[in-house]
Amino acid sequence: MRYELYYWDGIQGRGEYVRLALEDAGARYVDVARGDGGEDAMLALLDGRRVARPPFAPPFLKAGRQLIGQTANILLYLGPRLGLAPASESGRLWTHQLQLTLADLVVEAHDVHHPIAGSLYYEDQRREAKRRAKNFVAERIPKFLDYFERVLARHPRGKPYLLGRAVTYADLSLFQVVEGLGYAFPKAMARVARGHRRVIGVRDRVRERPGIAAYLASPRRIPFNEQDIFRHYPALDA
Amino acid sequence: MRYELYYWDGIQGRGEYVRLALEDAGARYVDVARGDGGEDAMLALLDGRRVARPPFAPPFLKAGRQLIGQTANILLYLGPRLGLAPASESGRLWTHQLQLTLADLVVEAHDVHHPIAGSLYYEDQRREAKRRAKNFVAERIPKFLDYFERVLARHPRGKPYLLGRAVTYADLSLFQVVEGLGYAFPKAMARVARGHRRVIGVRDRVRERPGIAAYLASPRRIPFNEQDIFRHYPALDA
Repeated sequence: MRYELYYWDGIQGRGEYVRLALEDAGARYVDVARGDGGEDAMLALLDGRRVARPPFAPPFLKAGRQLIGQTANILLYLGPRLGLAPASESGRLWTHQLQLTLADLVVEAHDVHHPIAGSLYYEDQRREAKRRAKNFVAERIPKFLDYFERVLARHPRGKPYLLGRAVTYADLSLFQVVEGLGYAFPKAMARVARGHRRVIGVRDRVRERPGIAAYLASPRRIPFNEQDIFRHYPALDA
Repeated sequence: MRYELYYWDGIQGRGEYVRLALEDAGARYVDVARGDGGEDAMLALLDGRRVARPPFAPPFLKAGRQLIGQTANILLYLGPRLGLAPASESGRLWTHQLQLTLADLVVEAHDVHHPIAGSLYYEDQRREAKRRAKNFVAERIPKFLDYFERVLARHPRGKPYLLGRAVTYADLSLFQVVEGLGYAFPKAMARVARGHRRVIGVRDRVRERPGIAAYLASPRRIPFNEQDIFRHYPALDA
């Protein structure tokens, strides 16, 4: 199977969680909207009258004739196929539950710099962003990372991933979230990291996985930037 | 199977999406935290050291020995068991995709009155809420409802639900979202309803389903209120 991923060019965004799974597994895929005419092809699928099951927004994945939208849903589909989720139903639901919790954190990380509206510039909601950032950094980052630390602490040593010994797409996504938060809020994360050694451990181990290391060193990995979900605005890093 | 639902008493909240599915199907369930000592039982499962797969937050469902968190994930599990999702994998993914899109709208509906922080009072973020509400009502409600209208318009007459002829938990959730938005933003929704007859049609049909009609008439249905996700603050209904 050659997968087709559709996501905006120029940012990691929510497409990145899918990319990391495909790259870790060495799957064959095309990042359609980053090629010539790719964005038009993406928009045609979003708005096309003949698309029976249209996605609400990118990212979406074309797998044969199937079109699958919503990041966590794409990973739910890909997980067992790429060897990045357990075979059992209960294991797949648990992996997905962790992914949805990470997705909640991603929404909040975005809304820190866009607390009023995604369609307004950051510059037009700077004051509100500063207020929201204060709370996000003081309460929300610790609350979420405490949770993942607690999940990891359930396992004995030698089982360093969220589900235990085997890596899943939720670990790859945790890597991305920790990297993103570290980019956006370097001061805050330096403080928070101390109390979350197991979470940081997942980040470090994922970074060194062969497929991920090769991907991060390649031009396919778009650098973090200030059009993206994780943005480094020093005023928000309290 | 007798299911145990765990969710905060006094609000519909995210627990309501699970309740509607259980009620429509006539499933046996206990709404644990609404009974004597139920909230303590819920908190024990959230924080318990012996819980192998702890949820991040309510709602969560106990099904035999399985503990399942995240609203959309609970419905993913219940869907085929309650006859509220198709049997095929592609049909189940599509239903789930629609549910996740509704979940995105629910986050935004909540953040209208809490744009700065969930841990602050509405009164402490009233000015920001007014700004966010303006955008939510003008752009976001129409964008989401346009999408569901478009999905419904894919079907010929006589197939009035999101997936066609058969009802799914996504229809029940769409009912709840439209009811909630109508409660919170009656003026705005009166305007929006005109252009979204198919969406309103799903709302009306779900309301009349026997299990749902009985539930809505019972004391089990908690009234909308201003501690909940959908809140009626006239200042925000522009």
